[in-house]
Formats: sequence, structure tokens, C-alpha cells
Amino acid sequence: MDIYEKSLQKHAEWKGKIETVCRVDVSSKEALMEAYTPGVAAPCLEISKDIEKSFELTRRWNTVPVITDGTAVLGLGDIGPEAGMPVMEGKCALFKAYGGVDAFPICIKSKDTEDIIKTIKLISGSFGGINLEDISAPRCFEIETRLKQELDIPVFHDDQHGTAIVIAAALLNALKVVKKDIGEIRLVVNGAGAAGIAIARFLISFGVKHVISCDRFGILVEGDPQLNPAQAELAKITNGEKMRGTLADAMKGADVFVGVSVGKVVSKEMVASMADKPILFPCANPVPEITPDEAKEAGAYIVGTGSSQYPNQINNVLVFPGLFRGALDVRASTVNLEMMKAASIGIAGCVPEEKLSPEYILPFAFDKHAHEVVAQEVAKAARDTGVARK
Amino acid sequence: MDIYEKSLQKHAEWKGKIETVCRVDVSSKEALMEAYTPGVAAPCLEISKDIEKSFELTRRWNTVPVITDGTAVLGLGDIGPEAGMPVMEGKCALFKAYGGVDAFPICIKSKDTEDIIKTIKLISGSFGGINLEDISAPRCFEIETRLKQELDIPVFHDDQHGTAIVIAAALLNALKVVKKDIGEIRLVVNGAGAAGIAIARFLISFGVKHVISCDRFGILVEGDPQLNPAQAELAKITNGEKMRGTLADAMKGADVFVGVSVGKVVSKEMVASMADKPILFPCANPVPEITPDEAKEAGAYIVGTGSSQYPNQINNVLVFPGLFRGALDVRASTVNLEMMKAASIGIAGCVPEEKLSPEYILPFAFDKHAHEVVAQEVAKAARDTGVARK
Repeated sequence: MDIYEKSLQKHAEWKGKIETVCRVDVSSKEALMEAYTPGVAAPCLEISKDIEKSFELTRRWNTVPVITDGTAVLGLGDIGPEAGMPVMEGKCALFKAYGGVDAFPICIKSKDTEDIIKTIKLISGSFGGINLEDISAPRCFEIETRLKQELDIPVFHDDQHGTAIVIAAALLNALKVVKKDIGEIRLVVNGAGAAGIAIARFLISFGVKHVISCDRFGILVEGDPQLNPAQAELAKITNGEKMRGTLADAMKGADVFVGVSVGKVVSKEMVASMADKPILFPCANPVPEITPDEAKEAGAYIVGTGSSQYPNQINNVLVFPGLFRGALDVRASTVNLEMMKAASIGIAGCVPEEKLSPEYILPFAFDKHAHEVVAQEVAKAARDTGVARK
Repeated sequence: MDIYEKSLQKHAEWKGKIETVCRVDVSSKEALMEAYTPGVAAPCLEISKDIEKSFELTRRWNTVPVITDGTAVLGLGDIGPEAGMPVMEGKCALFKAYGGVDAFPICIKSKDTEDIIKTIKLISGSFGGINLEDISAPRCFEIETRLKQELDIPVFHDDQHGTAIVIAAALLNALKVVKKDIGEIRLVVNGAGAAGIAIARFLISFGVKHVISCDRFGILVEGDPQLNPAQAELAKITNGEKMRGTLADAMKGADVFVGVSVGKVVSKEMVASMADKPILFPCANPVPEITPDEAKEAGAYIVGTGSSQYPNQINNVLVFPGLFRGALDVRASTVNLEMMKAASIGIAGCVPEEKLSPEYILPFAFDKHAHEVVAQEVAKAARDTGVARK
């Protein structure tokens, strides 16, 4: 029985990976009078006078929905909102296990950007933050941007920023191993969807100067009419040399390859054409752009993938539980760039410098300490940038 | 410290009456591969082929949102969606404790009927049923009716039908005590909002022939232009004698008074004007239409109120946990009249005939057996009427 058959069987046994439990006594007349009528009128009236009190008198302070429209689920694509639910539930399970966050899966039956924005806005009063998940590009950019503008709770599209944050953490440590300066490297990102665009932008904010972004049509060049608006914006701040060509052209002489595209698009020859001690993060799921074995044979010095079967798993499980834990703990009004950078630096710092090696650049996804560090660093960055409310 | 101060203090300590917990192991690489990537792709694909599988492979089968717009919370009125959350959470706690249902509170920041309907429809794929709560009349009628038409999961507005079901149960047993025939009684319902209208209609379905419905302007008469559309519909099937006048006029010679209005609108004189062995259910919260002590002094034979301080508490806590348990267990596509009647009859049957007395007509709200009976009877009625899917 392979992992897919096994997982299907387990899901049929579990009948749900999360559940809601009652935290208070409701077993007697007296208990009911406190937790329910008539006593409950008192907290209701307090909140009606000051909505901020909903973060103190209900579970709102710790509750985050994992929201999808089911259009970009795993590598499966647009499989529909209900079909995305097993992933959303899995995410909720991880939110609780690693961040102590009460997360709840919500699938939205619409692909209309305005519908999705409006639905989330209308239900946002129940939540302390919003985690967007598996919504396809370019719609996800508009949805996240608008919600960040219009809500005063943290909004985070995990496929973009969770991925970018863990890739940045991996890169920071990999560069220590190969002793290269982040300002000097040439970096190629293959895949210019939600994750690829966010990764390129985020790594630029860390000081990477030479970024080439590619999609299935090849290298992104400013002014190319086939680019979508988000890609056109990205092209303005990448590929300063206005290089044209294929992924293979982009990889010649590159120090780092980051893949968030599809399986098997990188050949051994392409790896061999890279600079000295090349770093490859072929993160396509479930099949990477090139397998770690092939990459190593072709001269790769450090390889990290999305899979747990190889060393250096690059998984955003390392990010979202701690990031929301930290943001919720200080009642942050948003998730800003500084909080995201703090998460990357925190994750990278969890591997002591003396233990860093080509096979060990990231803490493990189930390392509780790493999640605590992320929470602390994110909370600190929120306070330092003035977006914390407590 | 009164109950309100005590409840406020407890709510500040609890910081939430429910929480989400993780039901599966996610503590190792192997566990993560089953519950999350890559294995989770398998249940996702199964559901994408057949949405019905979402009831088997996720928690959907057992999950119900408690949804409000905050416009009619307790007796507090329109206090806003966030301020309704302590009640919604309390309801969720009771759903779990007495029905084993995973309930989740959602407040919607809109008073627009179409907005509310659309929001609920768009998120309905995450849920096995929908519990509407504390939405003001007459909007709640349109919202419930439309959702019942457009969704294939149970939709239930508790303020209407939960109240009607438990009142009917109380009435069935009270009539056994006073030995009156349901087809012969004269019944007055005061309050023609969501609950009052639903109660009148539901009791008519049980065979009550003489119903007079009143609101603050007095007796509802067919053709009266001041009636709203829902009241106008009700006037067609009540007050066949076209009596005009006040609540006091309506109560003269009545066998039963049901109040879902406001405190202190019934006087001792009005009770004294009723028929022999009068039954009164003054259920206004927190202050009843008349106190049980005053009603008894004026000659009431059986009195039940919404409060747990007196005998015969008439509380819809007796209804919603078991009703949804039963509906979810058989994957009912709706909640129909037969299921609601079965709930009333089931509740009434929980008090053995030989124990019935003027002081004991209903099981207690925290009687687990009563909730189980409701679940069984509702499930059976769903099967008998062909709306069960398993």
C-alpha cells in the first residue's frame, strides 16, 4: 500500500482531523446560567460597547480560518472548494499542534475575486487573523492586498509568503555553508505564480541583487506583453540585464536555483552549467524539478526540496503556526515585511552555525523549539514596527 | 456579585468557551506524510470526483456553524455581530456537550438579507448543516426559506423552530395534566416576531384550532394594513372569529397563554379572566410576561418560563443539540415539519405519564437521555419522510 492509499484509508477512519471541544462546564443549572443565559448577556453588552473586548471575552483572540476557494490545491490545481478541505483540515491540525492556534477550515464556493473578498470581510469579526490557502494566481494577489487594506487583523496568504519565508531561511543558511554574500549571488526562480513571485520579491528585500524569474514561456523580461500584471511588476525589479531566453539560459552561471513550478524541468546539464558550489531548491510537489540524487550527481553542493524523503525539507509548516502564534499574542493589526523577515531569520537561527552542513540547513518541521522561536521573533518585530496592540 | 458580574468575570477567565483540537498524530515525518502532504492528495482527489465524499473524509459530517448577524441577541436586540459571539460560543459549547456536534460560531457583519444568504451559501461546503441564530424578524424568514430551498443540508433557525418545538413539548404534557383536548383549546400567543409566528404555525400543525396571535398593537386580524408580510400570512390562519382588541381581550376565556414578547405585560386580572385550569408559558427573557408566583396567585394551574429559577424551564437547549445530532447522523438533506414534530413528541415522552404534574412537564435541559431521544426520533422521522441519505 503506497502513501496515497494509506492516507485515504486513514482519512476514512479519522472522519476529520480536527474537532471543536467545549472548554467550560455546562452540566448544571448554575453552570448554564454563567456560560449561557442569563449571565452571557453581560459579556455581550461589554463587546457591544467596545468591539476590542471580543478579543478578551470570546475565543476570537486565538482563532484563525484557513480559507480556500479550492483553485490551487497542492499540485492538483482547481479541484473545487470541498475537495480542498482535507488540506485545510491538515493545516488546521498543524496550526494547533505547532502553534496552539484554533484554526478552522472554510471553503468558499466561488472563483469571483469580489465574492471571496466580501465573504471573508463579512465573517472576519469571528476571527483574530485570516490565513488564505491554495487560491490561484493572479487572483490571490488582489484578494490578499484588498483584505490587508480593509481589515485590521493579520491577513496572510501562506502559499505566497509561507513559502517565501522558509525559502529565505534555507537560503540564508545555505549561503553561510558555501560562504557566499547574498548581495553577490545570481539567483533563478522558476515558476512565476503566487509562490514564485512572492519568493523573488521577498529575497530581493533580503538584499539579493541579481534575480532572474522564469515561467513556462522562459525568462520574464520587462515590457513583454505576455506577462500578467503581477509578472509585469516583478519584471521591473528583476532581470536588470534584460536577458531573454529559456530556463537553461537563465541557469548558466547562477549560484542558486529555486523551483516552485512542475516536476522534471531541470536537467543535469543545466545544473552543471551553474556557478561553483551551486545551491538548488527544487520545491515542486510531489515531483521536484530535479531529484536531489540527479542534482548531486551533476555537481549540486546543497539541495533542499519540499519532500521529507530527502535532507533539507523546505516546508512552510515551519512558518505559519509560529507566525500566527506571534501575531495573535501581541494582537497585531497586520503581518508586515519586518515580521516575515524576522520569521526567516528566526528559523535560520535554529540551526547552530557549527552544525550547518550541506545536508542540514533547516530545523525539522516538527521541532517545537523552532515554532516557538518564530512566534517570539514575529511578536517582537510586530512590537518594534508599531503594529502590536498589546 | 450577581449572575451578570459573575458571568463577565468567568468569560474573562475562560477567554473562549470552545476551542479546536487536533485529532490526529502530526508529530513525525511519517505521520505528516499521511495527514498532510503528500498523502492528503488522495482524499482531495476522491472528493473532487464525488463531493458527497466530503461527508466521509473530512469533519464536514459533524460540523455546524452557529451563524448570527447580531440583530436579535437574547433580549438585548441589535447589539452587533461581534457582540453576539458570547451567545454563539455558548450555543456551540452546548451543541458539543449535549449533541456531540462540532459547532463553530460565525458572525456576519451585514444586515442585508441578500448579503447574509450569499455569505452562508458560499461557505456552506464546509458544513453538514446550518444553525441560524438571533437574526431579527422579518428578515430571518426570508433568509431561512431561501437557504432551505437552495442548500441540500439541514438549515434551522433556532429562535423560530427550537422555541416552537420545546413550547409544543411543554404544551402536549401540560394538556395531559389538565386533561384537555388539543383540538378544543383556545390559545393566545403574545409576540408576533420570529418565535411567536413560528410557535403559532407549529402548534396549529399539532391540531390547535383556536389561536389568537397578538403583538404590541393588539390582536392580529386578517387584512389589517399595519401587519408585516409574515404577520399578514399568520393572520389568515389564526383568529378565525376576526376578534379585534388588546391582549387582555384575547386572554378572556383562553386555556393557554404563550408569551415570547417582553416582561410584565400580563396582569393578574388577565390570568383570572382565563378558562378553567389555565396554562401559562410566559417565556420573555430575562423578565417574563408575568412571574410564576403572580400567575399562580391569580389562578394559573401550570406555569413554565424560560428561566431555570422556576419549575418547568422551557428552553430550546432541549432541542437543537439532539435535532442536529439526529439530522447529521442520517445525513438529512433538510429539517422538515415531521422531524420537528418528532422532536417535540420525543421531548414530551421523556417525562413518564405517572410523574407528570403541574410542576413537572418537561425533562431538564441537562438530561442527556432527553437529547438522545430527540436525536433518535429526528433521525427516524428523516428516514420515514425520505430525506435521509444514509
